[in-house]
Amino acid sequence: MQTSTVNSLLAAIADVGRDQKRGGYSRAVYSDAELSLREWFIAEATTRGLEVSTDANGIIWAWWDLPGATDVAASRRGALVTGSHLDSVPGGGAFDGPLGVASSLAAYDVLAAREASGALLRNRAMAISVFPEEEGSRFGVACLGSRLLTGAIDPVRALNLRDAAGNTFADVAKANGMDPAGFGRDESTLGLIGDFIELHVEQGKGLNSEAFTDAAGRGPALAVGDTILGHGRWKLSFTGQGNHAGTTLMSDRSDPMLAAAQCVVAVRQTGAAQDNARATVGRLEPVPGGTNVIASRVDLWLDVRHPDDAITAMLVEKIHGQAQRIAALEGCSVLLTEESFSNTVHFDPALAKALSVSVRRTVADAPLLPTGAGHDAGVLASEVPTGMLYVRNPSGISHSPEEYVENDDAHAGVLALADVLEDLL
Amino acid sequence: MQTSTVNSLLAAIADVGRDQKRGGYSRAVYSDAELSLREWFIAEATTRGLEVSTDANGIIWAWWDLPGATDVAASRRGALVTGSHLDSVPGGGAFDGPLGVASSLAAYDVLAAREASGALLRNRAMAISVFPEEEGSRFGVACLGSRLLTGAIDPVRALNLRDAAGNTFADVAKANGMDPAGFGRDESTLGLIGDFIELHVEQGKGLNSEAFTDAAGRGPALAVGDTILGHGRWKLSFTGQGNHAGTTLMSDRSDPMLAAAQCVVAVRQTGAAQDNARATVGRLEPVPGGTNVIASRVDLWLDVRHPDDAITAMLVEKIHGQAQRIAALEGCSVLLTEESFSNTVHFDPALAKALSVSVRRTVADAPLLPTGAGHDAGVLASEVPTGMLYVRNPSGISHSPEEYVENDDAHAGVLALADVLEDLL
Repeated sequence: MQTSTVNSLLAAIADVGRDQKRGGYSRAVYSDAELSLREWFIAEATTRGLEVSTDANGIIWAWWDLPGATDVAASRRGALVTGSHLDSVPGGGAFDGPLGVASSLAAYDVLAAREASGALLRNRAMAISVFPEEEGSRFGVACLGSRLLTGAIDPVRALNLRDAAGNTFADVAKANGMDPAGFGRDESTLGLIGDFIELHVEQGKGLNSEAFTDAAGRGPALAVGDTILGHGRWKLSFTGQGNHAGTTLMSDRSDPMLAAAQCVVAVRQTGAAQDNARATVGRLEPVPGGTNVIASRVDLWLDVRHPDDAITAMLVEKIHGQAQRIAALEGCSVLLTEESFSNTVHFDPALAKALSVSVRRTVADAPLLPTGAGHDAGVLASEVPTGMLYVRNPSGISHSPEEYVENDDAHAGVLALADVLEDLL
Repeated sequence: MQTSTVNSLLAAIADVGRDQKRGGYSRAVYSDAELSLREWFIAEATTRGLEVSTDANGIIWAWWDLPGATDVAASRRGALVTGSHLDSVPGGGAFDGPLGVASSLAAYDVLAAREASGALLRNRAMAISVFPEEEGSRFGVACLGSRLLTGAIDPVRALNLRDAAGNTFADVAKANGMDPAGFGRDESTLGLIGDFIELHVEQGKGLNSEAFTDAAGRGPALAVGDTILGHGRWKLSFTGQGNHAGTTLMSDRSDPMLAAAQCVVAVRQTGAAQDNARATVGRLEPVPGGTNVIASRVDLWLDVRHPDDAITAMLVEKIHGQAQRIAALEGCSVLLTEESFSNTVHFDPALAKALSVSVRRTVADAPLLPTGAGHDAGVLASEVPTGMLYVRNPSGISHSPEEYVENDDAHAGVLALADVLEDLL
């Protein structure tokens, strides 16, 4: 057994960023909580002798260089990289992100011991990476760090994104000692990544579905990533006539709350009518939001996913049309804005096959599994071969305080990740 | 003309508490903006030689004592009191509250000039009062100051009310130099009020309705208050299963946002189906409120009003039943909590008649008018004779940045208020 296991690593941060109001954790990017987790990661990596740096897009890199490399910089090109993120959704769980980071550190411990004993001979350097704003919970665009690194988002647009308090990403970056002029596609950093492997808690019931569970109803501890559903975020702003809730006759109203509510129902109906689709409204904000006030505007955010990107686009167009008809009937108007969109990702098939071979030394029945959740690995997949490992989530619940992972499964995940990395080093 | 008119008084506070995000004004009780307005009022009253004090419930009193009174305290009992409030809904208009306070100061100027010229001989003292948290925008209970004064709310319940940031009313009161132990029914202060008159911007289209408008479509500048619709606030909390928006199948969801949205539609249908009813959802808060997160809970606040209190109660019961059925179909649960309720108020008929006679010297066609809006005058009506004057609101829009009052109407309101007060002094 290792001196530092994934469970003890996670236990060390179990009190960082707890959300007393929502339950679970709120670790928004560059909040005190997320900054504290970054410090924790840097300290853990430094203790292990890894060399840590943060790049121009705010991604942290902890380097395990090749022993005896004469030109360290050159030896890092095409390295094997593994990692995940530390930020969370508001009121999220303990594993979404940190499990991958902690598992990477614990897998390093396994590999370093193998190298010390002479059982591992490496051909290349390895790094552990931590990506900022994977959830998009603060600035509205998921996988913001990897999108900036790859140029999937225009840095000018990114710098002008605002959080709920009205701060721009540029302001927050500056306040955290970063140079706004440095954000954007970074060829030299991209050149460092030979392959990228991300371990993550499964965020659905795939491993616990009937196809994979044993007689006792228990699924395998681990799966290898297959595809990521295409997904995007759109904002629908309904504008009506703000007024007094007591004095305005029911017949005189143009109430955007009513239009937004009918739209929420339409989103559900449209999503449910399409095989393999997901359509969700999880965020809705009336303006001004007073109890005795008919709202003047209601903003809602739409999350739509489908394996076929054309169908995702069709669903959003359909919902937009429904929203326009609903708004018109209420004397309101509606504006649709796309906040982000990611195509369906098919992970590198050769790498997925290699991963499957490696993980089966620990988890004999590890299947290939598609997911509806977005990840930095999905963004990086357009640039380099990437692969993912999902650790079993007994209830399938994620983005919730109830998300959890059993200790044995987390440990199996570390051993499988170590084997995957060893076979690729 | 007076040296200080209502228009110039309002102009002096036109920049206090502007809300850049919502438009209009956000002047929550004991916010910097509302405290600044209190200072402004105290300075204006003090400049006029009025003696200002703040009572144990946070109500400000500016006294115009009887000339030559030997026992000032005794001479204040049964005084004529006029006033309104300075707090606003979030993103509210410039007139709701401040118009009544500024008109009281301007009417005092008229009366003081009449007294100085020998045209006014008073039989009793007069005071201008400013009530805190009339809107209930910060702590959720409207008319909190007058409810505390009259004992219409249990002070222990009031002290435990929390604002959106989680501060209790007790904490906020303490931070503003008040003693939480002092809150509650205050017989000696109530004994000071002989009659209470509140001037307020009309918050609907009553004065502009067909019944009252002239050939040019213009309604009278002023109305005398008749009844206030019974009204109340209820919170409906829908609880479901928080989860990941991408990985959770549409068929596996228990999404409280969907239940809340269907409830908003039911509220509209139920309100519209009942003559003279108002039913509104203007505030709705998903928890945790992330775009890529199925909410675990959605709270919505229901505002219901009807002239017949039994029908109000029936409507709320009906909506509660609908909410329970909607929640059950979605696999959610729902909890209804009453936050406040006020019976329908019939203002003192003899006082209303006297007011009508007085105001007609300025506005010959001033009608009697019911309102759907709650006021401190409505709470005080259970204790002392109270009356209200409503100043015309051209569009009928209130609780919105678009609320407005024409200068001429505001001036007519001051002259009518002065005549009303003179006839009662």
